[in-house]
Amino acid sequence: MRVRALWFRDGKLHLIDQRELPDRTVVRSLTHVREVADAIRTMVVRGAPAIGVAGAYGMVLAHQERSYTPDRAAKILRETRPTAHDLAVGIEAVHSAWVAGEEPLVAADRYRAEIVGECHQIGVVGAPLLAKAHQVLTHCNAGALATVEWGTALAPIRVARQLGADLFVWVDETRPLLQGARLTAWELARERIPHAVIVDNAAGAFMRSGDVDAVIVGADRIARNGDFANKIGTYEKAVVARENGIPFYVAAPWSTFDARRANGTAIPVEERAEEEVLAVADRRIAPSKSHARNPAFDVTPARYVTAFVTPLGVVAPRGLASVLARRTAA
Amino acid sequence: MRVRALWFRDGKLHLIDQRELPDRTVVRSLTHVREVADAIRTMVVRGAPAIGVAGAYGMVLAHQERSYTPDRAAKILRETRPTAHDLAVGIEAVHSAWVAGEEPLVAADRYRAEIVGECHQIGVVGAPLLAKAHQVLTHCNAGALATVEWGTALAPIRVARQLGADLFVWVDETRPLLQGARLTAWELARERIPHAVIVDNAAGAFMRSGDVDAVIVGADRIARNGDFANKIGTYEKAVVARENGIPFYVAAPWSTFDARRANGTAIPVEERAEEEVLAVADRRIAPSKSHARNPAFDVTPARYVTAFVTPLGVVAPRGLASVLARRTAA
Repeated sequence: MRVRALWFRDGKLHLIDQRELPDRTVVRSLTHVREVADAIRTMVVRGAPAIGVAGAYGMVLAHQERSYTPDRAAKILRETRPTAHDLAVGIEAVHSAWVAGEEPLVAADRYRAEIVGECHQIGVVGAPLLAKAHQVLTHCNAGALATVEWGTALAPIRVARQLGADLFVWVDETRPLLQGARLTAWELARERIPHAVIVDNAAGAFMRSGDVDAVIVGADRIARNGDFANKIGTYEKAVVARENGIPFYVAAPWSTFDARRANGTAIPVEERAEEEVLAVADRRIAPSKSHARNPAFDVTPARYVTAFVTPLGVVAPRGLASVLARRTAA
Repeated sequence: MRVRALWFRDGKLHLIDQRELPDRTVVRSLTHVREVADAIRTMVVRGAPAIGVAGAYGMVLAHQERSYTPDRAAKILRETRPTAHDLAVGIEAVHSAWVAGEEPLVAADRYRAEIVGECHQIGVVGAPLLAKAHQVLTHCNAGALATVEWGTALAPIRVARQLGADLFVWVDETRPLLQGARLTAWELARERIPHAVIVDNAAGAFMRSGDVDAVIVGADRIARNGDFANKIGTYEKAVVARENGIPFYVAAPWSTFDARRANGTAIPVEERAEEEVLAVADRRIAPSKSHARNPAFDVTPARYVTAFVTPLGVVAPRGLASVLARRTAA
């Protein structure tokens, strides 16, 4: 019943191919670091914490292959996608172990367990925030598929449900790749959590009509001041939430926080192929002469964030820098 | 070269089937009022001013058929879609002529000419607003296809181009039915107006990054105080535009203004079938157990509108009621 995005067994990294959901549950089994890099780049696996764990196991495969240095393997994996901070953290967790002569698989398993544990804690920390909410809106997929297990934005929803909360979830479909309609809806439907898919355009209308009590999203990279990158469209939802007095929460494990980055101005935003916009399910929707722009993420300033839901507690944006400084010092 | 959404010839109403664009240009030729009602309901023709003109010609067909009273024909046409004010205005223009013993076709042709003339005027009135803009964003299709000729939001862009302006248009794809990616992009590509299609989620990011100098949209119904209904998503774009200090213009002929309605609170918003959200190009995107909500429009409060672009001039929201009162008195 429980969803897991990936697992390592018998020398192979096994991944649910998220491009095939919800139609088919296809598992890809990878044995080469370059296959892992391709799987991250082509979004077989996506979601910042999940690609961090995939990157960690990619390092394990490179070590098994015996033809890569730790630096070379890390470079191959890091260059796949630029925005998620977790990717670099997951790769580095195994890289440093490998260089130190530790068994890479032990380091990767430890990193995976940390992420899963932190996501569970996020659920426990965040559930009380949703105690008075009846209708929660989320954007993209920040569920188990995005994080290995539990999720970030979906973890508090899962825990709140276990505690008896009667929650309804508005699922932004999340164009262009429809991670909301395909993946979040799939996770919620499996667990019989009441929900409705809406086009991204409709989120604001439901916020204005009083049908959204809270918004909760994940993140791909969070700067020290609380500016954060997340799936394209997050910025619009945050602005409209604040305009309507609706709390806006960002849930993330520590691997998503980029403590060395002062603010969001220079967060690298990946621009993906225009075909992702111009075609849906392999069918061209726009005229053949038209082009598209396709930034995969946007950056939302910290002033729109009510609070960050971290594994240790709820942190307001203005308190974030000191929490991160204390963690770095520890 | 010039796009026309519909025309009446030899006792038939001819419509470009907008569901088939941009792949195919298919013309439907209708001879029965019930066919016109179906064409409006199923969005063979859409766009508030265009369905008003289609409604007017639907009355002409009912008169030709000799088996409808004017009231019965008007009722059949009016019940197709609830939000656009123009539909009722176009039907009434022919209904009153028919009741008065005037030739319905003369009244419908006159109504059509009025709408086309007003849209051209909107272009002339609105072009100076875009004189300093280099990059303009529009939502949905408010072009010739939505208004018979010229368009509302696209008319100032067309006239500004004729005057030598170097404009680039950001085209929101406009889920669920993709009128931006399919129809606006088609009109712009035909006329070689530089443009890029973006997912609706990306509009805010480009506004924030300084890449949008003005937003211009059409409307389906505008209340006396300036609150207005338009395609779902318009509200989000208006909020984010104001947040970024970007002027937000609403262009419409007089038939869109509902002078008897004090404000937007009770504007009827059509909710369409959930399949429009759950499937794209006939392919299901969400899990089979998931449902959707699909409001086709939202209502944007007047405070987000910089100005209305009317056939007579640019009108600020606070000046709208007196302009409409003077028109009613005239």
